[in-house]
Amino acid sequence: MNHLINNIAKTLACDSIKASITDGVFGIEKENVRVDEVGRMANTPHPGILGDKFRHPFITTDFSESQVEMITPPLTSIAEVHGFLETLNDVISENLGDELLWPQSLPPLLPDEEQIPIAKFGEEGIHKEKYREELANKYGKERQMLSGIHFNFSLSDRLERKLCKAIKWDGNQDNFREALYLKMIRNFMRYRWLLVWLFGESPEADPSLKMKSLRTGEKMKMGCRKAVSIRTSSAGYRNAEEYFVDFNCLASYKESVKNLVDSGKLLLDEELYLPIRLKFEPNSQISHVEVRILDLDPFEKSGVSKISLYFMHLFMLYCLFKEEEDKYSETEQKIAAKNHDWVACSGLNPELLLKDFNGNNIRIDKMLQHILSDIKNFVQLSGITDNKNYLDALNKNEDLILNPDKRSSLKVKQQIEEEGFINFHLNLAKKYKTESEMSGFRFHGFEDLELSSQLLMKAALRRGVEFKILDRSENFISLHRGDKTEYVMQATRTSLDNYSSVLMMENKLVTKKILEKAGIRVPCGLDYMNAKQARSDFDLFEGKGIVIKPKSTNFGLGITILKENNNEEVFKRAVDIAFEHDNSILIEEFVAGKEYRFFVINEKVTGVLHRVPANVKGDGVKTIRELVTEKNKDSLRGRGYRTPLEKIRLEEAEAMFLEDQNLNFESVPAKDEIVYLRENSNISTGGDSIDFTDEIHPSYKEIAAKSAKILGVRITGLDMMIEDISKPATDHNYAIIEMNFNPAIHIHCYPYQGQNRKLNEKILDALGF
Amino acid sequence: MNHLINNIAKTLACDSIKASITDGVFGIEKENVRVDEVGRMANTPHPGILGDKFRHPFITTDFSESQVEMITPPLTSIAEVHGFLETLNDVISENLGDELLWPQSLPPLLPDEEQIPIAKFGEEGIHKEKYREELANKYGKERQMLSGIHFNFSLSDRLERKLCKAIKWDGNQDNFREALYLKMIRNFMRYRWLLVWLFGESPEADPSLKMKSLRTGEKMKMGCRKAVSIRTSSAGYRNAEEYFVDFNCLASYKESVKNLVDSGKLLLDEELYLPIRLKFEPNSQISHVEVRILDLDPFEKSGVSKISLYFMHLFMLYCLFKEEEDKYSETEQKIAAKNHDWVACSGLNPELLLKDFNGNNIRIDKMLQHILSDIKNFVQLSGITDNKNYLDALNKNEDLILNPDKRSSLKVKQQIEEEGFINFHLNLAKKYKTESEMSGFRFHGFEDLELSSQLLMKAALRRGVEFKILDRSENFISLHRGDKTEYVMQATRTSLDNYSSVLMMENKLVTKKILEKAGIRVPCGLDYMNAKQARSDFDLFEGKGIVIKPKSTNFGLGITILKENNNEEVFKRAVDIAFEHDNSILIEEFVAGKEYRFFVINEKVTGVLHRVPANVKGDGVKTIRELVTEKNKDSLRGRGYRTPLEKIRLEEAEAMFLEDQNLNFESVPAKDEIVYLRENSNISTGGDSIDFTDEIHPSYKEIAAKSAKILGVRITGLDMMIEDISKPATDHNYAIIEMNFNPAIHIHCYPYQGQNRKLNEKILDALGF
Repeated sequence: MNHLINNIAKTLACDSIKASITDGVFGIEKENVRVDEVGRMANTPHPGILGDKFRHPFITTDFSESQVEMITPPLTSIAEVHGFLETLNDVISENLGDELLWPQSLPPLLPDEEQIPIAKFGEEGIHKEKYREELANKYGKERQMLSGIHFNFSLSDRLERKLCKAIKWDGNQDNFREALYLKMIRNFMRYRWLLVWLFGESPEADPSLKMKSLRTGEKMKMGCRKAVSIRTSSAGYRNAEEYFVDFNCLASYKESVKNLVDSGKLLLDEELYLPIRLKFEPNSQISHVEVRILDLDPFEKSGVSKISLYFMHLFMLYCLFKEEEDKYSETEQKIAAKNHDWVACSGLNPELLLKDFNGNNIRIDKMLQHILSDIKNFVQLSGITDNKNYLDALNKNEDLILNPDKRSSLKVKQQIEEEGFINFHLNLAKKYKTESEMSGFRFHGFEDLELSSQLLMKAALRRGVEFKILDRSENFISLHRGDKTEYVMQATRTSLDNYSSVLMMENKLVTKKILEKAGIRVPCGLDYMNAKQARSDFDLFEGKGIVIKPKSTNFGLGITILKENNNEEVFKRAVDIAFEHDNSILIEEFVAGKEYRFFVINEKVTGVLHRVPANVKGDGVKTIRELVTEKNKDSLRGRGYRTPLEKIRLEEAEAMFLEDQNLNFESVPAKDEIVYLRENSNISTGGDSIDFTDEIHPSYKEIAAKSAKILGVRITGLDMMIEDISKPATDHNYAIIEMNFNPAIHIHCYPYQGQNRKLNEKILDALGF
Repeated sequence: MNHLINNIAKTLACDSIKASITDGVFGIEKENVRVDEVGRMANTPHPGILGDKFRHPFITTDFSESQVEMITPPLTSIAEVHGFLETLNDVISENLGDELLWPQSLPPLLPDEEQIPIAKFGEEGIHKEKYREELANKYGKERQMLSGIHFNFSLSDRLERKLCKAIKWDGNQDNFREALYLKMIRNFMRYRWLLVWLFGESPEADPSLKMKSLRTGEKMKMGCRKAVSIRTSSAGYRNAEEYFVDFNCLASYKESVKNLVDSGKLLLDEELYLPIRLKFEPNSQISHVEVRILDLDPFEKSGVSKISLYFMHLFMLYCLFKEEEDKYSETEQKIAAKNHDWVACSGLNPELLLKDFNGNNIRIDKMLQHILSDIKNFVQLSGITDNKNYLDALNKNEDLILNPDKRSSLKVKQQIEEEGFINFHLNLAKKYKTESEMSGFRFHGFEDLELSSQLLMKAALRRGVEFKILDRSENFISLHRGDKTEYVMQATRTSLDNYSSVLMMENKLVTKKILEKAGIRVPCGLDYMNAKQARSDFDLFEGKGIVIKPKSTNFGLGITILKENNNEEVFKRAVDIAFEHDNSILIEEFVAGKEYRFFVINEKVTGVLHRVPANVKGDGVKTIRELVTEKNKDSLRGRGYRTPLEKIRLEEAEAMFLEDQNLNFESVPAKDEIVYLRENSNISTGGDSIDFTDEIHPSYKEIAAKSAKILGVRITGLDMMIEDISKPATDHNYAIIEMNFNPAIHIHCYPYQGQNRKLNEKILDALGF
């Protein structure tokens, strides 16, 4: 027991440590059994749409082909790692067809053992498959169908360096790391019963479930009346016996694991089903710890709540800083193991007795009180009290300790009694599936990124393309698969485009000049640097519909539309107004029609969209206010640009616009009457986006594709005015307004009306992933 | 004579016409004979470095292989067209080796006629060559060596449309155009004698010059005692007889030219050497008029002054608006031709008599007075008085009319008498060559563009790549040759680079992350979004040299350098200062050494530059003030970023900086002592740029090239800190600071010390031109 490490809590006095105490790196692995609509294990292959399970970094199968495994990358915040996991759930759910993800650690309805399929990995995975067959023989396939969550955790490099410095460590960084992590593991082993007590979520199995007894080899029903976690109990997902491993230093730890394998007790070291494991880098340095004690939480779509993860992190830090009174002896280990088992099997019993490390029996409530005050003390010392997330987690779990009946395990048990094991979990599974579909546009934990970027990341996640966020506020990410790397900003600014094409698009004047020269119709016109010249050009535009505008338009300021231009004075005044907003203006022909956005990838139009102002459709009964409330319930509508559409507001601008129509919020529109609440069609003020990709006459798509080709552009959002999309393009019934070099994709994926054009997938296709 | 067209001057009452009256399109073609250092025609082939003369749009040969022809594209201002011509002179001069451009219309020392080479155009140009051989037989090769200037002019489309509308033209636009241009030509023919009188510049030939008489076929000396323009005289570059052409409508014009060819009087219609010709588009529409009456002005580097071109334009407009009293009959034509000939041959005679169109003899001074007042009257009516350029041109030529002895022709004559024909012109040729070299960094007429863009355009001009300016203020141009088009902004933002590479460079944080990952050394460090975290990280940087700076640095504000960082309070204060300037800061290691700019094209380093602060080198005699004055004489130094270097200032900042060294402007530095006048090394404050491309250890070039490769960048300006450029790079003696996506090229082409790295040429190479 290293003195410096044991007393590391002293460093908590130091502001520098406090500032970095919650820095960490987190990862989650989770399994769910796929089930059919009545709760039977799905006996189908792993869905091909989720990519190559052998190479996919995020989605694979576990023991069984029917067991989906989700793996997050290492991430630097609980919010991100939880969000990533939730998004994995969403993406998998959306791509499972009629199947569902089973939200409970204990299995659904299983077929006969021989029909439980071991995951297939083909030629390359033959080793893996062999190993799993041996496990099936040893543990029974039913036991292997138990599913759980692994929480991976390491300290941040910054915190580790600060700690090393603060305690004046005299050895090298590797030794320090080793001492630190082993201490954390030892304390974790000692106090892990608390996590089982708090987070156990597998109190009762389906009556049909029988598992091979590891002692007798016979199939047996599972269950204890007061269990909180059958999965982590001695009857659950465990080795045949409790193997003792020496955690006091790395060498002895490795030695004891090796002995277990050499003696034939374990097939491989990974068969050692410890509640916590030390993980290594390829270069044998310690990478992180893997906490394997968490059951799936059926009340959470993603199987674990964010608040539980915050507590887990807190608990790991507690274990790191908690002073050890003694070496972690075999005696202590045995006591810790017993405590774990007792809690797992009888954790619902308020009078349960555990043992302290002196071998004294202590009532569970006393044990809880003691450790709670110890953790609270640590939180106080460490300054984590400043962080609301951790404080909430502490408070919530304090509440469970003070009110044990509030624990999830009890609720699960009660619900099973009410609805039956299968039905209860099946209903939740269905609910989660719907929820996943409703947040299809979102990458949880990364909601601060633009929706377009979130969508691109989701597509990457589905197909197993890894990504890194290089500059979050800029939506700058890199995408990786094998040797291939691509850098993408704002989802559509990619290496596909060459710089000069982008510069052409960025400059409306240049775009127009080039398109016009190539025979594409653009609003023709002239640009002026001085007002005198512009004012004197009335003749040139007399009798024509024109728009007079500052060269750089901002929110429409300084723009005048003259539909007939037959008054020279009005014309001159409009010129002057435009010059008040810029030192250069444009006089352009007025183009009639509606504006459509064409999304073009590699000279192919992949989406056509038109926006209409905020509106409601009457039913002859409801008021405008009621209709708006109803329309706003759509999960696509939110506030603050974090959803594809914005909620329609009932504010002054809307009231005024209605007033102009002799209406107000309480008016009742006739059945099928459409009432507009705004003049402008911006999505940001509640406008609707409507997909016309299939309805529009193909001639316009050809023009859009040709325009992209002329500018040498691979990805663009082209805005075109069109008089009538059902009629073919002539040389005067359309005009291209501009081409955007960073067009949004989410509007085409989640329009108000129309289908998802999956532009995120198409961009990844174009990038060659 | 169309009434509406004849009375078109009425439209001058209209503001709309006045506002556009000087709008026009202009072009110049000019020939110069190449001569050797003693004034003999150069008997060498057209220089290969000036590209393929058969396809070059700007530089070719005329009749003789020894005669360079320069052709500007059509441009919309006199300033541009004159600048383009001047730049053509510069570029050709710079690439002629020891040869010079002969600045006089009349030829230099010619060899025997058979040794005057007809321009070679190879297989493709065989027709052209044949025609020229026939001309040689007919006119004698010596006559074909006369050189001149053609001024091409058309009205702007805008002015033409306005005029058409203003006079309520009842026919179509083509008829209007025809009537307009023919009227302009007729009046030009009538009054052209004025231009000869004003701008004749070939009063006397070299005594050695003999030309074939078109009447007798014998070789004869040329000259009249009072000639102003031998070239445009009847003995000069003219048809064998005066052919009369009917200018009254387009059909009769075409018919009369056809008759001349059909009758064998002309080989081709282009042999009709009229003082003005009508030019057509490929679709037979009128394109412009070509005025062929101007001699080379020996007193101008480019052969014609800008002010003369403004007057030419004015004169063309005068001809357009001037009412015709009568049809342009054969009688009128004959009188006009005679007037021309008399002025050409005897224009220096103040008592010369011309004829009016009634056949009366009128003294030249009266004729001049009359036309001057007529032109002034037009200028008054047309509102051109508002335009200083035209007013200056009018005033200058009025002065010549009032003081005929001020005319160039007289000066030329006097100088020839003083120095001899050959010496006088040879000295001027040498002077122009030096001037061209000194303005090597400039594209005249386009000085408002960035120097990098001017240089790129010069390289394009040399190799015959056409270019258009798409957005002048943005330095956005397109380059064209054959089917190939490239769009370039600011000289270095091209299609070679892909968008995501540019975005990586644009984001310093991302650049660093990517380079660092690839093992390239960058200043390592951390970025912070909140001050508390940054302040608490003192430990991590204790004892290290660091730089604390706002993420987006602006003129160095908010940056603190802590060379040893051993005081926590100072560290925290520096963090706070940085946060005062941005909501995100960087703490980076301090990198020692000097900063070098590497210009990389296609993973090859093409220039390495280092900048030093404004300085002077003492000679033990001169004061700092005198040394600065001397250093500032360098033509590379100017003010306002229009030259590669800026003049060193002697202002407060410099005075203060000297004061710190106990010096002032009157101090006398010792011989070879270098005195700095500024701390910062910016070029904008008089700093020097020094080329180290050949001196730097190659290992740094490899690193720069590798960095470009890692980011997938084709063109970049990479900034690297280097401790000692003579020693090879290790993993700690350099660091890359940033990579610029729009690096300047002129600094590498015109450094204070070192050779021209011709990056403009290299970029065009890279673009495939």
